[in-house]
Amino acid sequence: MKSETMILNNKNNVTLTTYLLDSSNEFGNITTRPAVLVLPGGGYMMCSDREAEPIAMSYAAEGYNAFVLRYSVAEHAQWPNPLEDAEAALELIRLKGSEWGIDTEKIAVIGFSAGGHLAAALSTIGRVKPNAMILGYPCILEEISNILATRVPGLDDKVDSETPPAFLFTTRDDNVVPARNTIRFLDALDKADVPYEAHIFYSGMHGMSLAKSHTSSGYRGNVSTNNGKWFEQSMTWLKQVFGDFKTDSIDIDMKVENDSLIYGIDNAIKELLNNSACREILVSKIPVFANGELMISKLNISLRKMSQYAKGVVTPELLDEIEAELNKVRR
Amino acid sequence: MKSETMILNNKNNVTLTTYLLDSSNEFGNITTRPAVLVLPGGGYMMCSDREAEPIAMSYAAEGYNAFVLRYSVAEHAQWPNPLEDAEAALELIRLKGSEWGIDTEKIAVIGFSAGGHLAAALSTIGRVKPNAMILGYPCILEEISNILATRVPGLDDKVDSETPPAFLFTTRDDNVVPARNTIRFLDALDKADVPYEAHIFYSGMHGMSLAKSHTSSGYRGNVSTNNGKWFEQSMTWLKQVFGDFKTDSIDIDMKVENDSLIYGIDNAIKELLNNSACREILVSKIPVFANGELMISKLNISLRKMSQYAKGVVTPELLDEIEAELNKVRR
Amino acid sequence: MKSETMILNNKNNVTLTTYLLDSSNEFGNITTRPAVLVLPGGGYMMCSDREAEPIAMSYAAEGYNAFVLRYSVAEHAQWPNPLEDAEAALELIRLKGSEWGIDTEKIAVIGFSAGGHLAAALSTIGRVKPNAMILGYPCILEEISNILATRVPGLDDKVDSETPPAFLFTTRDDNVVPARNTIRFLDALDKADVPYEAHIFYSGMHGMSLAKSHTSSGYRGNVSTNNGKWFEQSMTWLKQVFGDFKTDSIDIDMKVENDSLIYGIDNAIKELLNNSACREILVSKIPVFANGELMISKLNISLRKMSQYAKGVVTPELLDEIEAELNKVRR
Amino acid sequence: MKSETMILNNKNNVTLTTYLLDSSNEFGNITTRPAVLVLPGGGYMMCSDREAEPIAMSYAAEGYNAFVLRYSVAEHAQWPNPLEDAEAALELIRLKGSEWGIDTEKIAVIGFSAGGHLAAALSTIGRVKPNAMILGYPCILEEISNILATRVPGLDDKVDSETPPAFLFTTRDDNVVPARNTIRFLDALDKADVPYEAHIFYSGMHGMSLAKSHTSSGYRGNVSTNNGKWFEQSMTWLKQVFGDFKTDSIDIDMKVENDSLIYGIDNAIKELLNNSACREILVSKIPVFANGELMISKLNISLRKMSQYAKGVVTPELLDEIEAELNKVRR
Repeated sequence: MKSETMILNNKNNVTLTTYLLDSSNEFGNITTRPAVLVLPGGGYMMCSDREAEPIAMSYAAEGYNAFVLRYSVAEHAQWPNPLEDAEAALELIRLKGSEWGIDTEKIAVIGFSAGGHLAAALSTIGRVKPNAMILGYPCILEEISNILATRVPGLDDKVDSETPPAFLFTTRDDNVVPARNTIRFLDALDKADVPYEAHIFYSGMHGMSLAKSHTSSGYRGNVSTNNGKWFEQSMTWLKQVFGDFKTDSIDIDMKVENDSLIYGIDNAIKELLNNSACREILVSKIPVFANGELMISKLNISLRKMSQYAKGVVTPELLDEIEAELNKVRR
Repeated sequence: MKSETMILNNKNNVTLTTYLLDSSNEFGNITTRPAVLVLPGGGYMMCSDREAEPIAMSYAAEGYNAFVLRYSVAEHAQWPNPLEDAEAALELIRLKGSEWGIDTEKIAVIGFSAGGHLAAALSTIGRVKPNAMILGYPCILEEISNILATRVPGLDDKVDSETPPAFLFTTRDDNVVPARNTIRFLDALDKADVPYEAHIFYSGMHGMSLAKSHTSSGYRGNVSTNNGKWFEQSMTWLKQVFGDFKTDSIDIDMKVENDSLIYGIDNAIKELLNNSACREILVSKIPVFANGELMISKLNISLRKMSQYAKGVVTPELLDEIEAELNKVRR
Repeated sequence: MKSETMILNNKNNVTLTTYLLDSSNEFGNITTRPAVLVLPGGGYMMCSDREAEPIAMSYAAEGYNAFVLRYSVAEHAQWPNPLEDAEAALELIRLKGSEWGIDTEKIAVIGFSAGGHLAAALSTIGRVKPNAMILGYPCILEEISNILATRVPGLDDKVDSETPPAFLFTTRDDNVVPARNTIRFLDALDKADVPYEAHIFYSGMHGMSLAKSHTSSGYRGNVSTNNGKWFEQSMTWLKQVFGDFKTDSIDIDMKVENDSLIYGIDNAIKELLNNSACREILVSKIPVFANGELMISKLNISLRKMSQYAKGVVTPELLDEIEAELNKVRR
Repeated sequence: MKSETMILNNKNNVTLTTYLLDSSNEFGNITTRPAVLVLPGGGYMMCSDREAEPIAMSYAAEGYNAFVLRYSVAEHAQWPNPLEDAEAALELIRLKGSEWGIDTEKIAVIGFSAGGHLAAALSTIGRVKPNAMILGYPCILEEISNILATRVPGLDDKVDSETPPAFLFTTRDDNVVPARNTIRFLDALDKADVPYEAHIFYSGMHGMSLAKSHTSSGYRGNVSTNNGKWFEQSMTWLKQVFGDFKTDSIDIDMKVENDSLIYGIDNAIKELLNNSACREILVSKIPVFANGELMISKLNISLRKMSQYAKGVVTPELLDEIEAELNKVRR
């Protein structure tokens, strides 16, 4: 993983932190990864750590690259500063997409509370727009400016056909940002025929983040197995919107054809090693086979199966080469 | 997150990669974190990337610090080289525990296949032992040496009362490492009265890792929502063994006592701002309150509540100071 | 279980089917059970079996008593016939509550599609009201009358402070009953400060019922693990609204106090059997103890523990009697 | 649901209670149902209600028919009385299979504790055998006879190639029936190459049943979300062993082909009603269409779609008839 923090705007303390997963030739079905851009909440007064790295980690654990933007807050919060930060971050991610291994058509923004306002703003009135948005107990209505460090535009009247798909969650009795913010935005999405998913849980504290112990600040009210299901449901949703990593490779057949007329990578390794010509090929391509005594030489495992189990040693290319050479061996 | 790779043994290509989560004064209930040491599988021929970073990420997403050890394999696999690598890694983590923010009494080792053998070896015959072990489709029996790059000791007869608690999972029809490896180890744990949990799923490919699309190499047989439940069950188990992050703080009572005889942080902020003495205190301690027009000044929110929501701005210490000063204001 | 179908209105083919769970002195924490009244959908043209018994079964499996109402449909659908049926059913359940072992303050109505309209009507304009409502892809707006067998009143403007708590779910792309029906009702609940929970899933067919194979009519589009989560979430919600079955009994301590000055039900049974006076008491009260050779006589189990494990044999009353007699035995 | 209790052996108080789900032409993919035969635990001293009807309900909620056998216990427990009861019950279910709508090749037995012993006995030494077995914290070893009301044969040495697939679960620290009972049986299954799945949870009370509040007798120790996952995992397993209800019907395409040359059930109903010949056919077959003003006549819904949504009104046969007649109408 490559995790580093880069400064986007020095004067306003705006930074972007990357969480870029390693690539590997074992991840044969992953050429680029979808990504999430995390916008923590904090009333435009701060960017809460509780809604920053832990959120990035959760999506990274699902194979997504992740970014945390710490946007202009407190004395720098004056709108549209934060929106310009978000636009700059999104543009940077798209620009660096190839270098960072990102599918630039699969970038979701996820924001909480005031960060949810910023995520919704980016998705509606942003100069550049993400491909999907996830809003956690978001501020949407202009009236909510009263509890924020800056007056912000209401977003319930900014939804149009260009708005990307949305996933929203909140709790009904949120006593900081009322649930009507979520309902109004749902209503706008529905009228504009923008696809969405929404979960309004019965009860829970504002700012619950993942609703798990490690993001709770120690408050029991911030922990809820039930409310915490939003994360898993957001992943299921993202896979509906973006599609999943491909898993269409044919499962490897372990059946070894002993009566095949030619040798190949589907023969049992032990059988190949018993044939001197085949053995020579194997050892030359995969030196560890020289250690015949201890190796896989006693099990009914084919080279194709072994390669799947040890792709770092036996790459698909190498496998093809061996197959070609083995095929030439006369039986 | 601090992610870096350090060389433990240059000659044998042994490295330890850290995944250290950031600390924050918002994580008031986390002083140190438990940790997992990940030992990927690969028949002692390689260390599979599919069982390395993705595993570390999954535990990191639950608030654990994580490490991946790439131990001696292939031509360096000669036992006890890998065991010595694991011992060195564990010792290093314990040594650096304070610096890395780790609870050194809560370090679990998790290994897969050959890495499961190594994890079980560390836990039974290791010079130093982890505090818990998680074994995924592990090699345990001496007979399994036949498919490994080195002859290894059987571990079913090495369990004793010093062995730490264990969590095991595999699939019944694993056609590379038979399930009897898991059953024999369970039997040994049970006889030695070592606490354990075990899940043997009905069917699945060897090397399924998280059984999710992004760790599948594209093979459908490596994906299974059902089998993938081992991860969540391992977390529930770890919390039983290690305990959970504390969540015993009293939930903040939003009820504002207007008839209290003294002012304090449980009064509504708007009420405090209406009192000139209180207002002066607030503004001097938290300058953003000077911007009275836009702020939280209109909602019935107490400073205590706000602080929980914005701990980065209002630290517990600051809160105590303000409480003390407000208490002095005559009503 | 007592399952029978009673006729409520012969002319209109209105029936109420009961699913009453057996009581048992082993269910020490269940004196009365909450109940659900199921109103299947079917456009007021029919009552769909797919939303009838399978729904009742699901709640019965959670310890709730259940009822299915087949209300006036097709040529009898003329409003307010169906509402009067629902009122009659609810009144009957409340009337028979004691006989049927039901907590009459914990009756939820659950309806689907047109049945969802009927459930919402009962909860808003009903002469009698349930204590909670669950609405699945409900018809709410007057405009939806166009696809129903009767013109019905819109319910979005009927919510008031007397309306019971609500749980709603639907799918965003329902192409029979638009999701705006759900959104409008949510909006009304929110404005009236009626507690609610809501889940609008991204995609799914109208009429998905439990979204499981056995309620699918064989259509793949009716099966979805993700959408099917509504049921579990509805149970979690019901337990928040109604409370759960009590589980506050002290866990039985297996530690046997051998140094106690008096005998009692916390002594090991084998110890009691070794004392002739105690043995006589045990055998007289629980004849199976006469068979001393084979019984629990060799384990360190107390009678209190055994009773918990075999409450049908050792009732709490019997336990009290034995305790009293044992206490009198001189040690 | 047809629930009734029939006497199998009057002298020994042996009864079989049925839980037979209703059939319906809406359940087009269910001709026969798999079934479970529930054997409650209770040390052969009793049949615990906590492991009887609630278990039957849980499987019934998944579309399975269920049976509870109250076998010979206490003074009638003398082995092989209970085994003969189980054999008789299984034979009766197979005999009545057709009448009761059961797939007689898909009958699973599920037993708990002593009932788990009986289930395993039926599956190994039974005169007739079930098609799968589910064992909850089972008694297996002969030594366990010491806590039972009858001396019973050990079953760990009775497994052979005729033994059906098995699903086992227990808790590691069960202090009534040690987990080694489960481990020994697993070992035997593995050696005989009988397919199995097993979950040994870390900690829990003996007799936890579903581990839910309504089966807890009020003891907190009997409730565990984590341990209670055994039920869901047993269902997933049953579907792997028995297969699932078919869901291979083509999803109905809502796209209405207006340019089709012939009329048919894929045309929008409103279009059909606008054609006098088609209207006549519809009304004659489905009289509710006479009420043209209020009906589905305004939406773009086809008759095929409506039929899926209202199979009770429009059966597949009726649909075919209408299609045939509509096809004859000249366009």
